[in-house]
Parts: sequence; C-alpha cells; structure tokens
Amino acid sequence: MRTSIATVCLSGGLVEKLHACSDAGFDGVEIMDADLIGAMESPEEIRALCARLGLSIDLFQPFRDLEGVADDVFADNLRRAEAKFAVMERLGADTILVCSNAGTATIDDDDVAAAQLGALADAAAKRGIRIAYEALAWGRFVDDYRHAWRIVQLADRPNLGVCLDSFHILSRGHDPAAIEEIDGDKIFFLQLADAPALDMDVLSWSRHHRLFPGEGDFALTDFLAHVLRAGYTGPLSLEVFNDTFRQTDVVRTAGHARRSLTWLADRTAAANGWTDDLLGEPQVARGIDFIEIAGADLTAVDETLERLGFAFGGRHRSKRVRLWTAGEARIILDEQVRDETPRLTGIGLMVDDADAAVDRAVALGAPAAFRRTYAGEQELRGVASPDGTVVYWSDRPADTSWITEFEGGSPGSGACESGVVDHANVGYRWQDFDEAVLFASSVLSLTTQSSADVPGPQGLVLSQVMRTEDGVVRLPMNLAPPTAPVPDRHVAVRCDDVVAAARAARAAGLDFLRIPENYYDDLAAQFDLDPDLLAELRELDLLYDRDGSGGEFIHFYTPTIGGVFFELVERRGGYDGYGAASAPVRLAMQRRASASA
Amino acid sequence: MRTSIATVCLSGGLVEKLHACSDAGFDGVEIMDADLIGAMESPEEIRALCARLGLSIDLFQPFRDLEGVADDVFADNLRRAEAKFAVMERLGADTILVCSNAGTATIDDDDVAAAQLGALADAAAKRGIRIAYEALAWGRFVDDYRHAWRIVQLADRPNLGVCLDSFHILSRGHDPAAIEEIDGDKIFFLQLADAPALDMDVLSWSRHHRLFPGEGDFALTDFLAHVLRAGYTGPLSLEVFNDTFRQTDVVRTAGHARRSLTWLADRTAAANGWTDDLLGEPQVARGIDFIEIAGADLTAVDETLERLGFAFGGRHRSKRVRLWTAGEARIILDEQVRDETPRLTGIGLMVDDADAAVDRAVALGAPAAFRRTYAGEQELRGVASPDGTVVYWSDRPADTSWITEFEGGSPGSGACESGVVDHANVGYRWQDFDEAVLFASSVLSLTTQSSADVPGPQGLVLSQVMRTEDGVVRLPMNLAPPTAPVPDRHVAVRCDDVVAAARAARAAGLDFLRIPENYYDDLAAQFDLDPDLLAELRELDLLYDRDGSGGEFIHFYTPTIGGVFFELVERRGGYDGYGAASAPVRLAMQRRASASA
Repeated sequence: MRTSIATVCLSGGLVEKLHACSDAGFDGVEIMDADLIGAMESPEEIRALCARLGLSIDLFQPFRDLEGVADDVFADNLRRAEAKFAVMERLGADTILVCSNAGTATIDDDDVAAAQLGALADAAAKRGIRIAYEALAWGRFVDDYRHAWRIVQLADRPNLGVCLDSFHILSRGHDPAAIEEIDGDKIFFLQLADAPALDMDVLSWSRHHRLFPGEGDFALTDFLAHVLRAGYTGPLSLEVFNDTFRQTDVVRTAGHARRSLTWLADRTAAANGWTDDLLGEPQVARGIDFIEIAGADLTAVDETLERLGFAFGGRHRSKRVRLWTAGEARIILDEQVRDETPRLTGIGLMVDDADAAVDRAVALGAPAAFRRTYAGEQELRGVASPDGTVVYWSDRPADTSWITEFEGGSPGSGACESGVVDHANVGYRWQDFDEAVLFASSVLSLTTQSSADVPGPQGLVLSQVMRTEDGVVRLPMNLAPPTAPVPDRHVAVRCDDVVAAARAARAAGLDFLRIPENYYDDLAAQFDLDPDLLAELRELDLLYDRDGSGGEFIHFYTPTIGGVFFELVERRGGYDGYGAASAPVRLAMQRRASASA
Repeated sequence: MRTSIATVCLSGGLVEKLHACSDAGFDGVEIMDADLIGAMESPEEIRALCARLGLSIDLFQPFRDLEGVADDVFADNLRRAEAKFAVMERLGADTILVCSNAGTATIDDDDVAAAQLGALADAAAKRGIRIAYEALAWGRFVDDYRHAWRIVQLADRPNLGVCLDSFHILSRGHDPAAIEEIDGDKIFFLQLADAPALDMDVLSWSRHHRLFPGEGDFALTDFLAHVLRAGYTGPLSLEVFNDTFRQTDVVRTAGHARRSLTWLADRTAAANGWTDDLLGEPQVARGIDFIEIAGADLTAVDETLERLGFAFGGRHRSKRVRLWTAGEARIILDEQVRDETPRLTGIGLMVDDADAAVDRAVALGAPAAFRRTYAGEQELRGVASPDGTVVYWSDRPADTSWITEFEGGSPGSGACESGVVDHANVGYRWQDFDEAVLFASSVLSLTTQSSADVPGPQGLVLSQVMRTEDGVVRLPMNLAPPTAPVPDRHVAVRCDDVVAAARAARAAGLDFLRIPENYYDDLAAQFDLDPDLLAELRELDLLYDRDGSGGEFIHFYTPTIGGVFFELVERRGGYDGYGAASAPVRLAMQRRASASA
C-alpha cells in the first residue's frame, strides 16, 4: 500500500507540511495549487525538497471549471491549463486533478465535455501529463462518478482517467459498487475522506467537516474494497478539509492522518480475507481491568472511595501505589507523580492476547508507554492515547495478574461488592478529540454508539459514546467548546442496588453532589414515579432516567476531587444509555460547587 | 415596547441570568424549564427574585409533544402538564409555551389536535393559565404558523392562543403577511430571532445558529411590522439558541441582546412611519474622517507612513498626537497610551449631524467614550464599540474641525495626494464578533455586503464586509477561529495610481510585504495579463484581482507594526471587492514574516 495526503489537510506553510508528511511516513503528497502559490519556494525547490524527503508528488490539484463551456471560454481554459502544466513540469508532477465544472458550465452535453477533456488530454500528453477527472458532488452537470467515467470513456485518451473521491460519492449516497465496472488502470487517483452524517448542503459539509477514515460515518472499508477490486494500484490518498485540522499542530495531525490509512487498509483487508496490509487480529476488550488515577496526594480520593463502599485492596509492594476495589471494579491510585491535581491517567483492558493488542496499537502508530517494572512484577504493556492517558492490556487470570503485587488489603469486599466499571468518561481538548475517536476505533476496537449535545452552563458539551458491541467497555468522550474548560473525567461504577449503596455511603459520611429540588419536581412530571421511589431519590440526591422500553437508570455523583469524580450507577431492565437528560443538571451543580469551593 | 428574553439565550445559572437580564433593562423573561430544573432556588425564590429585580415572568417554556396522540398518551400528557402548571403557580407565571408535537404525534387530524389542546386549555383555565401554541419548523404534522392558528381557532378557548417565533416562520420561507389575519389578542406571545442564511437541516440551524436581530439575514422589521399590525401588544421577546452566546459573559450578552431589540423596534417604526420607539435619525456616514492608531512609541509608524507617501500633517498643539495625511486619508498617531503595541484604536466618521449620531448610539446602549478636551479644542464625541475601538462622529467642515488643532505640518501633500481611506479591516475575538456586527448595523448604520472564508495557515478566517450602500465607508470584519490569534487590523488607503505610489514608496525605502514568485505565475495562468503589467506587479510585490465584469484591483501591504499594517489599493473599472483571492497569500506571508521577526 502506497500512501499519500493532500497538503490542504494540514496547517502551516508548504515546506512545514512536506516535512510533516515525510516524518509521518507518507510515501507521497498531493500538492494543492494554493499551497504552492503561497510559498516563497520555487517549484524546483519543492521538487528537490520532496525528493530529499522521499515524497513522490502524486497529484497536482485542483484545476477547476474546464469543460462544458463555449469555445472561446474553452480556449482560455486551455491556456490556463498550459500555464499549470508548465508549473507541473517544474514540480515534476505528472498527474493533475480536473474537477467537473461547478461554476461556468453552460452546456449539458457529454460529447462536448468529452471533446474538451480530450483536447486537454492531448495538450497534456505532449508533456507526459495525465488528467484525472473527478465528479464533484456539486458539479453543475457532472456530479456522479459514473457520469464522469462515461465521459472519460467517450473521450477515450490514454492519459485521461478518473479520480475517485469517497466524499463526493458517499455524501450523495451513490452506490460505490459500480466502481468495479471501471477499468482499474483508468482509475488514475483515489482520494479518501470520512465524514459525520450531517444534513446540510454538501459543499459546506465537504469544505468544513471531512474527517480522516475511522472518525466518521462513511462505510470506507466497503468503498475501498470496490476500488481495489476494480484493480486500482495507485496510492491511497487523504483529502480532508476540516476546520480543526487546519489549526492543529502539523506534525501531529500528519501522524494522525497516516494512522487512519493503516487502520483503513487493515480493516479492508480483514473484511475481504486479503493478507496484504493485515495487522494483528484486533483484541476486543472483554472487560475493564482497572482505572488508574494519579496525583501527588490522593488522600481525598482514598477517603471518597472508602465512603463510597470500596474495599482497600492493598499497597503495591514496591511502588507508591494503592488499590481500591468494588467487586470487579478496580481503581489504582498512583502517587508517583508530581502533579498536584488528581487525574484519570490510565485504563486497563482485559483481552485474550495482550501482546497482540500492544503490537497492533504500535503498528497503528500509538507510542508505547514506559512503565518501570521491577523483578518479579508483571510487565503491563500499554500505549499512550492522543491525550496522554495510557491504555494497558492484560490477558492474565487474576491469580497471576498485577493484582497479586498488592499487599495488606482489608479483608471483606466493602458495601459495593457487586461493582464493575460501567464506563469511564473522558474529557478532551478540542485539538485531541478527532484523533481520540480514531484511537478508540482503531487501537481499542470500539465502535461509535451515539452522540449528543449536552447544554452546560458554559456552553454545549458534545458527548460521543465509544463502546464494545456487548457494552462491557464504554467510553463516553466529552468535548467542550475550545473556549471552555476541558470537561473533568470520571469513573462510573455499576452495582446491583444503587439506592442501598447511596444510603450506605451517606451513612459513611460521603459528600454527594447536591441535586436541586426542582429536578425532582420535574422527574415527577415526566415519569409519574412511584412516590416512595421519588422520595428516596430526593432524599439521597439520586438522578433518574427511563428509556422508551421502560429500562431505568439510577445514579449519583461524588464531588470533584482535582480533575476527577466518581459516579455510582444501576441499570434496570436493559437501560443502555448514560442519563444524558440529567447531565445539564449535573454540569450546573458541578459549576456551582466549584464556584463555592 | 415591553422587552423580554428567554433565559436559554444566556450562559451561567438561572440566578445569574436573571440579574443580567434586569441589569440590561429587560422588562421580563421567558423562564426555560431546564434552567429552573438546574437551579437550587425554589420556584418561590425565583418568583421573589424576579419581583425584586423588576422582571415579569412572561412565559414558561417549553411544553413538548402534547397533541396528535392516542387517548392514553394524552391522558399522561395532561398529567405532565398539571405538574408543570403547579410549578408555574409557584413561579407566578401565567403563560406556557406549547410546541407542536415533533416527536410522538401519530394522528394527523386537526380535530384531534384541537380537542386535545382544548382539553389542555380547560385544565389550565382552572389555574388562570394561558396556552401559547407554537408551530415548530420541524413539527411532525404542524410546522406552519397558519396551521397552528387554524387549530387554535378550531379549539376556540379564551385561554388558548398562538405563539409566533420569527425563526420557525422565516426559516421555512413561510410568508409572514398572513400574521395580519390573526386576531391580535390571540397572539399570546412573540419570540424573535435572527439567523444567517444557511442551507442545513432546520433543527440544527435553530439549535446552534440563531442570532440576535440585526446580526443575520432575516427580514425582521417586516416580520415585526406584520405582528404589530395584527394588533399584538405583548412583549418583544428574544429566543436565541447560539453556541457562542451560551459561552459569552452573561452580563455583556444580555446588554447586547437588549440593544438588538432597541434597534429592531426603531427600524420597524421608521419603516412604517410609526413614532413610537423611534430613536433619532440614523446618521449614515459620508466618509471616513480619520483613523486613529495608538501606542507608546509610534516612530515606526511615522517612518512607514512617510515612506508610503503620506504628508506630515503636524503635531497636536496640546497632546502627544500627530497627524499624517494622504489626500483625504487622515491617520492620527496617539502616543498618550502605555500600550507598547501599536493598534488601531479609533475611527472617525463624517456625518450630517454628529450629535444625533452620538445620541442615537447611546440610545442603542453604546457607552459614550471619554476624551479629554482642552479649552478651545473641538469636542469630538464618540462611543466605544464592543471590542473597545472608539468611533467618533464629526459634522464640521475641515476649516473648523479638529484638523485646525494640528500645527507644524510639512507643506506639500506627499506622493499619495489622491488618497482616501478605502477600508479599515478590523479583527475580532470570537466573543466580540456578533456583537460587533450588531454595532456596525445599528450604531454605524452599515449593511452586510458579503462574507467569505479565507484559508490562512492557522485556520479559516471569516471575513464579513459591513459598508455604506455607496461604499464610502467599508469595514471588513475578520474573525479567526477561537483558538487562533486575533487577526491584525489594517488600514487600506485608495489612490489613483498604486503602481506609481508603490514605485515611489520603494524608492523611499519602504519595506513591502514580500509576495512569492509562484503567486505571479498563477496570476499569469488565471488572467492572461499584459506581460508589462505582470512584470510590474512582480517587481513591486503588488497583488492583483479582476472581477467578472473586468474591474481590477491592485494593492500592496506594508509589514505589520505591532498589531497594525497598511495597504495601498487602486480600484479600476468599478471593482467592488477586497482581493479576497489573494488573502491566503497575504496571511501566509505575514505568518512567515512574523516567524522570522
């Protein structure tokens, strides 16, 4: 698999972009005309730089509004094209992208379009240049790749083929199966982009909201399989217009982009039984092994967990690390850091083959995490996620796992013995979010479940749930507006009887996040609740939700300690959500608590 | 005119919002149910607080998914409603907004909807509560205000009327003229929102992109006139869901919101010859009197202006202020500040009646600017714009104006004697932008011309042009992403022969913003330019644009000095734009220059 990327995907100047593409391991680039125009370096310098960096210039793009026009306009278009061909010769680029006419086309006639594209191809042929004709989703008369292919066949020139772009095809809902009817050697170029399912004009969607493969809602493995089955042998190239990636660090975004292609090639190969491009088998998590919280002084967390009904699981025999458990929910407190603010810093996942999981993660470009291991201790391998949280994988049974390294735990299991980690809720900075979605989908093999905008007192918070199919691992990912604070992280532990757990915690002196009386008045209005249950919810600051099929969710929150807080939840009758309806109340109360702290 | 605002427009908690609404001078509020639910204060406390703050509770909202449902669902809906009526009694709110059913409606039958709304109204009547029924733009069966009105007529209850929302009507392109066919006393409530013209699903458009009146593309004065002509006498109330205003400072946003209603009432009254709500006559600027740049040491600006061909206009006789002129373009340099960074801090406008302009601005809530004036000096009155830039108005002829206070200017007019300020380009922070648009439309009587996304090396920059109809005053307003630096400001001076001016400036030793060779290669491709002109452009680092009708724009930039730079422009043949096509090159070169500085 050869990989390429359009320079328009990245921030900065052209030279910076090229360095970043090379560092990220791309084999080539598509040079965006505007990036060259805005560069002080001559085409010859760019050509030489690409050669030194080991980047081929796979495409020069775009050339707009060529075909379907009157003769005099076409004559001027040919003149424009000759000038660009001259630039391409200086660059050493041999393929140019010609988009279907979206602006100046006046003639809806395939013969005219074919004749004009043919004339362009003949002019290009004299310089050894190939034309890749692409149907823009908003082309005036040509907006479907099948139509572009018909015109290319009509024109019938050896140096004229099509460019396929997943966005232009999938955004319009066009069936990609017909790609297999195109001669593979007439597919001159392939551009890949994912995108969220949005209901808006396709031009704005394309210009602002494209994503790297694995981050959106397009069925890109199917798409790519059609292209490869057609016999396409050129590079897989990314063309992603995205307002965020235009701003994020160019080196990091290039690396992120490159990983998306590794993932896509792997998943496409796996889905089709091809052995090329296959990474190791994805290791779908069978459970959450532990959650790690780090901070210089975690006494307040100890206190909260004890009152919450966790049992003390002991101290690590050689490190300043403690373990708390509630049934199968294990929380590790790590004081081996200087950071004063307690934070959620690690997640352990249980898989069938931990080494395979790590190897796959590293193959996907995730940096291996360093963890100092002493003699006789279990080596726990992991990688850093884009925001720095470390993910560890373990495949050992409990009696040989890292748990055995903890000593001096209290006997007994605590009040919360039915516990299991229900979900870990992670807040991201705006510049890390999309990359984190790709990390969750590619490295953690999670899938997107749902997303919602939660109104908070400082703006809308986007909450996107990534999870295993069976719901054993659930990671709701939160993104606040770039100008608001990054949402705090929290761990939600599920138990069989949250009311009893809340009562016990209250008796143990736990502070609860206080919930307004008005909230309970609203619950009564919404759900016609049993008065005893309502009284209990009200008394214990419990939150409640019910889904369409009658499933129920009861939960409560501890106050925030530094950058982390805890939630205890109970799911009844197959409730599968996260109480999003009560999230605005939670956010309002947390803000109130932090203002008075 | 009574004014009101929905609490959902603002950031923060309910109590903060109410204080801000009162401070901003609103007469009442719409209380959003979710804001009450997320408040610790009881409905009685909120009621008492509103009473103390002098705010009436004009509406409680929203109640969703009531009508068009099966009997058992409706019975539960009535139960839900009774619970909300109880809250309203505690709040002292007598009108509730009922939105047309968007979720659970299964019966498309006006008789059923009318019967159910009638039953709701009867239940409400027992508590003295009125029902304001609103057609949501995305209602399942009722999505048009005329349809909602038919159902209200069918139900025929004294305490059942309609709520009209400009967004729901204008977003769907429904003709608001039929509002006049509704009995004025059956229009129970009026919600006003502006919005940009966007081509996206109406629900997302409504939830994220509404604006305050005067900031978007809706014809709100026409809309309001129809409502008032129908005989509506209730409050003008704002309901604006906007991702930005959910984050901006609540006090400031409330003030901003309040001003939008003052403007709307004034413009509606003016358009219809009504004397109520009329402010003074808008003073459309007849020219730019001066631009003020302030900084502790402006020597570098002196040097640049002199080399650019400006004539020294003298020193102020009593202040540390200097004047430079190029024909009618006057730039005042003010060193009476401590700020080290030269910035564009003031704009002087020439109008027919300066006092009327200031009085109108103050009536629109703009804070009067303080300017120390000594005996015998002209008092120059002005107001501060949302970002702090001061706008001054003058109506004196030059021989009696502030210009006479400058002494010791050089004789002669400089090389740039045909100069006039073409435009002043102001960069805004994300939280100031919408308010600045309203300031420009209401206080400065400018209109929106066009907007464009300009790709810069650190993200897209939105450029929205505000101008007088005749183009004498043009203020392109720039907004970078919230996470990027605020764009620098600049002054563009127009002259008759920019090539000659550039040559003279080059001879005088002026540094130009350097433009890449590649840019000129592209110009040649695009425009088939005369080779001599192209050579001249290339030699002098001039930028070029041509519009559809052959009008031409030639311009160049100085380097940035602190936070300001200058542009010299020439318009040929009616060119009416700003060279947006070359803006990405300019941004790239400025970033390059600042990186190497």
